[in-house]
Amino acid sequence: MKLDDLINNLGEWLRGTGANSNIVMSSRIRLARNLPDIPFPHWAKKEQELIVLNKAKEAIESTPLLKDSLFILLTDLETVDKQFLVERHLMSREHAMRSNGKAVCLTPNEVVSIMINEEDHLRIQVMKSGFDLDDVWRIMNKLDEDLSKIVPFAFSKEWGYLTACPTNTGTGIRGSVMLHLPALVMARQINRVLEAIAKLSFTTRGLYGEGTQASGNFFQISNQVSLGRTEEEIIGNIKGVIKQVIDQEESARQNLLSQHRNMLEDRIWRSYGTLKNSRIISSQETVELLSMVRLGLDVDIIKDIERFLINELFILTQPAHLQKIEGKKLSPQERDVKRADLLRDKLNKYKKEK
Amino acid sequence: MKLDDLINNLGEWLRGTGANSNIVMSSRIRLARNLPDIPFPHWAKKEQELIVLNKAKEAIESTPLLKDSLFILLTDLETVDKQFLVERHLMSREHAMRSNGKAVCLTPNEVVSIMINEEDHLRIQVMKSGFDLDDVWRIMNKLDEDLSKIVPFAFSKEWGYLTACPTNTGTGIRGSVMLHLPALVMARQINRVLEAIAKLSFTTRGLYGEGTQASGNFFQISNQVSLGRTEEEIIGNIKGVIKQVIDQEESARQNLLSQHRNMLEDRIWRSYGTLKNSRIISSQETVELLSMVRLGLDVDIIKDIERFLINELFILTQPAHLQKIEGKKLSPQERDVKRADLLRDKLNKYKKEK
Repeated sequence: MKLDDLINNLGEWLRGTGANSNIVMSSRIRLARNLPDIPFPHWAKKEQELIVLNKAKEAIESTPLLKDSLFILLTDLETVDKQFLVERHLMSREHAMRSNGKAVCLTPNEVVSIMINEEDHLRIQVMKSGFDLDDVWRIMNKLDEDLSKIVPFAFSKEWGYLTACPTNTGTGIRGSVMLHLPALVMARQINRVLEAIAKLSFTTRGLYGEGTQASGNFFQISNQVSLGRTEEEIIGNIKGVIKQVIDQEESARQNLLSQHRNMLEDRIWRSYGTLKNSRIISSQETVELLSMVRLGLDVDIIKDIERFLINELFILTQPAHLQKIEGKKLSPQERDVKRADLLRDKLNKYKKEK
Repeated sequence: MKLDDLINNLGEWLRGTGANSNIVMSSRIRLARNLPDIPFPHWAKKEQELIVLNKAKEAIESTPLLKDSLFILLTDLETVDKQFLVERHLMSREHAMRSNGKAVCLTPNEVVSIMINEEDHLRIQVMKSGFDLDDVWRIMNKLDEDLSKIVPFAFSKEWGYLTACPTNTGTGIRGSVMLHLPALVMARQINRVLEAIAKLSFTTRGLYGEGTQASGNFFQISNQVSLGRTEEEIIGNIKGVIKQVIDQEESARQNLLSQHRNMLEDRIWRSYGTLKNSRIISSQETVELLSMVRLGLDVDIIKDIERFLINELFILTQPAHLQKIEGKKLSPQERDVKRADLLRDKLNKYKKEK
């Protein structure tokens, strides 16, 4: 498997299946782990980072779940390749800005990815489509067990797993769910919901993680506290909060359908019409219009396409993806034209299987 | 023939044929004529208006070109019917606001219409698609001759034909051409062009005549002077001026196509996509989007529909037309929904004949 094989490969998390997939794009858990007696990456010397890299590679190679995975040194990647992995949610933007002594590992279905020498020695991510933190945790737990057989992780009886940033210390676990909340946004209820969540020590981020704005009505909600509770308690807590948000979005959708159906249909169909007809389109406008079309599918107003296609288009229309598809560097103006071409091609050609 | 037969009848002027029909919607000439020894309508008594009505009817009935025409007393019309005739350019808005002692006469193909007891006793209009003032004048001249055999019109050797407003005195002729000038608008050259025309004593009005704003990039250009020259001189003068405007629009279009083709295609296709998908749409937005689609046809970017369909949609989507089609009064909100329904129906069903 090569990195470029991912271009035409639909990551599992994009399939649009799983529980509550009309609202939940994906569920993921990230675990922070470090090797003992080696400084955290921001303080480590070159040779210490290399020790981590080699140790991580050895552990990955002996872990059954990672048998077919791709292990890539960031020094082997072009800028566009790194951005491509960021767009696929397989690597953080911070990790992408560096190269020496850093690596990333990922499975072909994109369920597992590991950043090596990011903020911690290992940042393990498990991501699946739909609302299924239990299964994600089951996979993560197995991975953690298997990896730690080869590299015993730094652990203190008093503090739990040790991490570069104290907010991750303890379980080192962060669970997050990517939610599509267009009805709460349209009904102007989203701020109230997010403020309530913040009081429960949850953070909300945009489509591309820390520091990004919500776009396309996508909100990534995650726990902030990882200390003083078991992993199962933390996950149970996240599930409870997310369930409430899902219920509120459901009821906002029902309200729109019963009270403002014409307005809703109008916005959805106009968005679909624009995506199928534009010749120049920005990334931002694309995300907003796709969001409306996804809502159209999810409330059964649009019936001739499927969710995975729209999910895929969110990713394929991103800048690095467009450049990987074209096989060359494109200016922002060129991308806006190629993006429109790709959208028309995919949306007009698609025939839903009956 | 009944008034309602017009609903599904495409007026000749909407066919989108004739010279320069890629830019010229229609050419028309209006003639002001009055009976001698009877005050102009604004000063006439009831019984005097009745004399005019009867005399006009008699003259119309004996005129071969008006053989199949419809003669309608405004007292027999509902408000929506009058508005319907205004939308079809067969009656002025001023005439539509009155009833007693007023009438309108029109031929089934809408080439000829006559308002009786508007500002003058007779306001005769001949209108045809494309840029063809010569043929319009030929028809008008014949009509004028034939009508005046039955009702000799008020005429002074010194002033020419006498009219209620001195600006019409002389020939009583006003020629106007409805031009579609989207490229001059997009290139921001339209004001310069219209200012130059104003200096030549031409006036510019919108889609619905005096006092209306230009919408959908349609501009109705007409002569102001009708005194001191022959009809042929006046028409020759109008033709010369309009020809220049047509040339400027043509060159603005060529410039857009060569310099900004992507932007142009984007605007045109997005407009088409919105018209084919919206569920709620205002009259104003409809006119603007149809203008872009008409340009798309005229510069060969859109190829799957024909000009007469777009011309027809400009008219069918007007408020009174929508209500006549539905056969009942509709609120503005209801109209916005019905308008969107009609646009989708017509545009998605249409199959161009090869």
